[in-house]
Amino acid sequence: MSRKRYLLTPGPTPVPPEVLAAMAEPVIHHRSPDFKRVFAETRARLREVFRTRNEVLVFTASGTGAFESAIVNLLSPQERVLAVSCGEFGERWRSMATALGCDVVPLAYAWGEAPLPGDVERALAESGASVVFLVHSETSTGVVCDLEPLLEVCGAAGAVSIVDAVSSLGAVPLETDAWGADVVVTGSQKALMTPPGLSFVSVSDRAWERVGRATLPRFYWDWARARAKQEADNTPFTPATSTLVALNVALGQLLDEGLEHAFARHVALGRACRAGIKAMGLDLYSPDDDSAAVLTGALTPDGVDAVELRLALRDRHGITIAGGHGDLVGRLFRIGHIGYVDIYDIVTALAAIEAQLAELGTGLERGAAVAAATDAFDAAVRA
Amino acid sequence: MSRKRYLLTPGPTPVPPEVLAAMAEPVIHHRSPDFKRVFAETRARLREVFRTRNEVLVFTASGTGAFESAIVNLLSPQERVLAVSCGEFGERWRSMATALGCDVVPLAYAWGEAPLPGDVERALAESGASVVFLVHSETSTGVVCDLEPLLEVCGAAGAVSIVDAVSSLGAVPLETDAWGADVVVTGSQKALMTPPGLSFVSVSDRAWERVGRATLPRFYWDWARARAKQEADNTPFTPATSTLVALNVALGQLLDEGLEHAFARHVALGRACRAGIKAMGLDLYSPDDDSAAVLTGALTPDGVDAVELRLALRDRHGITIAGGHGDLVGRLFRIGHIGYVDIYDIVTALAAIEAQLAELGTGLERGAAVAAATDAFDAAVRA
Repeated sequence: MSRKRYLLTPGPTPVPPEVLAAMAEPVIHHRSPDFKRVFAETRARLREVFRTRNEVLVFTASGTGAFESAIVNLLSPQERVLAVSCGEFGERWRSMATALGCDVVPLAYAWGEAPLPGDVERALAESGASVVFLVHSETSTGVVCDLEPLLEVCGAAGAVSIVDAVSSLGAVPLETDAWGADVVVTGSQKALMTPPGLSFVSVSDRAWERVGRATLPRFYWDWARARAKQEADNTPFTPATSTLVALNVALGQLLDEGLEHAFARHVALGRACRAGIKAMGLDLYSPDDDSAAVLTGALTPDGVDAVELRLALRDRHGITIAGGHGDLVGRLFRIGHIGYVDIYDIVTALAAIEAQLAELGTGLERGAAVAAATDAFDAAVRA
Repeated sequence: MSRKRYLLTPGPTPVPPEVLAAMAEPVIHHRSPDFKRVFAETRARLREVFRTRNEVLVFTASGTGAFESAIVNLLSPQERVLAVSCGEFGERWRSMATALGCDVVPLAYAWGEAPLPGDVERALAESGASVVFLVHSETSTGVVCDLEPLLEVCGAAGAVSIVDAVSSLGAVPLETDAWGADVVVTGSQKALMTPPGLSFVSVSDRAWERVGRATLPRFYWDWARARAKQEADNTPFTPATSTLVALNVALGQLLDEGLEHAFARHVALGRACRAGIKAMGLDLYSPDDDSAAVLTGALTPDGVDAVELRLALRDRHGITIAGGHGDLVGRLFRIGHIGYVDIYDIVTALAAIEAQLAELGTGLERGAAVAAATDAFDAAVRA
């Protein structure tokens, strides 16, 4: 038997079979009525998932591309921007804005920390920045910040927020309009349960007001051009049609499940995963509370190399999980539970980690992690 | 029976079933050994198709995005560029370079014309531009230019060429290294027989020399970052993994057929299509010679609206062909024969056009176009 494979990284994430089947449908032309129908429906579903009344712009690009579109449509050369970071992705947006010619004021936390509204408020007042980068779910650490109060201080300061919601949107609550998030960026390959290749930005009226004044050069990323075309159910350039057709199926499934149910499922999966990790006696790296609904980060026991653990899981068990960065590369591993994931995916990952650690003679009792995880999941679902 | 559909536009083009099946494979992680293996093989195949020894950079974007990458990696603000155009796409690159802050010197031909080496030579001397945009196959008109002598005058003038080969690469000969094309841009969704969502650029040593000096801002499109990652079989940002896996299958099929055979097939399909159009008594818009191997453009008879013809083909016959732009919208239709197309696709399109025109009382003899097309194809294949 060819080895079964299990993808448990925090993106790309597993894709439902019906969505994969849609990827394989014959290609349709992007100016055809077939496409327009799908595109209109997909955008309506995106608005529901974003919880916004505004148009969600669609780019054929990774999430990084969509974030770049936000910078070049909202800022001018040398313009000041406040970049809040507490991990790899926050640091990426800072580097990106610097590369694109902005005057970046960093508000940098240590990896694993969460930004605080008071700090952002102070940094906005001191810097005079009128645009702020926020990361909702920092995929490198597993920290999901408390976004609403951060958005409140941005709004009060009159600053336009750009929110990286790549690994959060659809997994944890994000009320774009109700919370006043000006620009929300996400990609197809996380909680939206679709292969990578598409990314999305919602844009508030307040953000649109800046677009006409922003002078960073843009063409592929031009929001005004994209909006004008989308209003006719069209795109300025050939989009990834097959991935869009698949996304439409995936969004239908997510909305059929119901966003609130999906959020509760992610919380329950996080509880299950943390219970299993703790039952193995391992230390959590991601927070030990329900905010950590996107992924679970844990540290290997002393003497166990996390890279070797991941290689063994991959080569001997067919399971792909993620590692850590920088100083944590030998200690941290991350289990994603975003999107098309259920309790038996968590059971699979924990059982394999248990087996692998037991084999290394760490004295683990096999079965304890799985029992703790399923108990925690059942309790969460009953609650 | 649900209506069978036939896609005969010059992009997106039909995709082989094996390539569609690959689109539906479970998603693999872009940092996994499975992906690295596929990515290395795909890039080796791309180099074969590009006929270059240089690395081919892969972007998750449409062809327009890859062209933008060429501009921002090779040029600085206000730097002069010669933009040769003879149709919609040439004009797009001109607008793009202007939007991105270049000093664009246009060498604009009427739509349907082809650029001449003497004109380019003169324009380079007069403008002093050191970068030139060329369109190999102008999809809006069906004109495939004679690229080699154009590249010769660019080389002699010391100018770096950026070649739009989106609808030509893999369909008609393009010897990137032998002809000295500095930068060649193409996309997944034309002769490479893959759904849209990926685009590619090959970069010559001469072009790389400019990259360090070019100061247009860039991050997502940064070639140096992309090359460094690709040298480790990796990408800077999450790529469209499923489309890459599918592309690898499609490139394998193209190379199994053999590039020379594919080029001959496109010539034969062009002859068949033109023979059929002429047998219906219609006027060709694209050139009446073997250069028109990518698509055939034709004008409807007096009194027949091309938009209505296309709608009838689509709604009554399930066949999608392309229309014209600007003044030609009511007269021009375009049949693509790029990529996964054989003589029976041409037969299908011609038979439906015949049937539709006959019904409009244009006095057409049904069957004549199909007979002429199959005759021409057989003669071409025997030759």
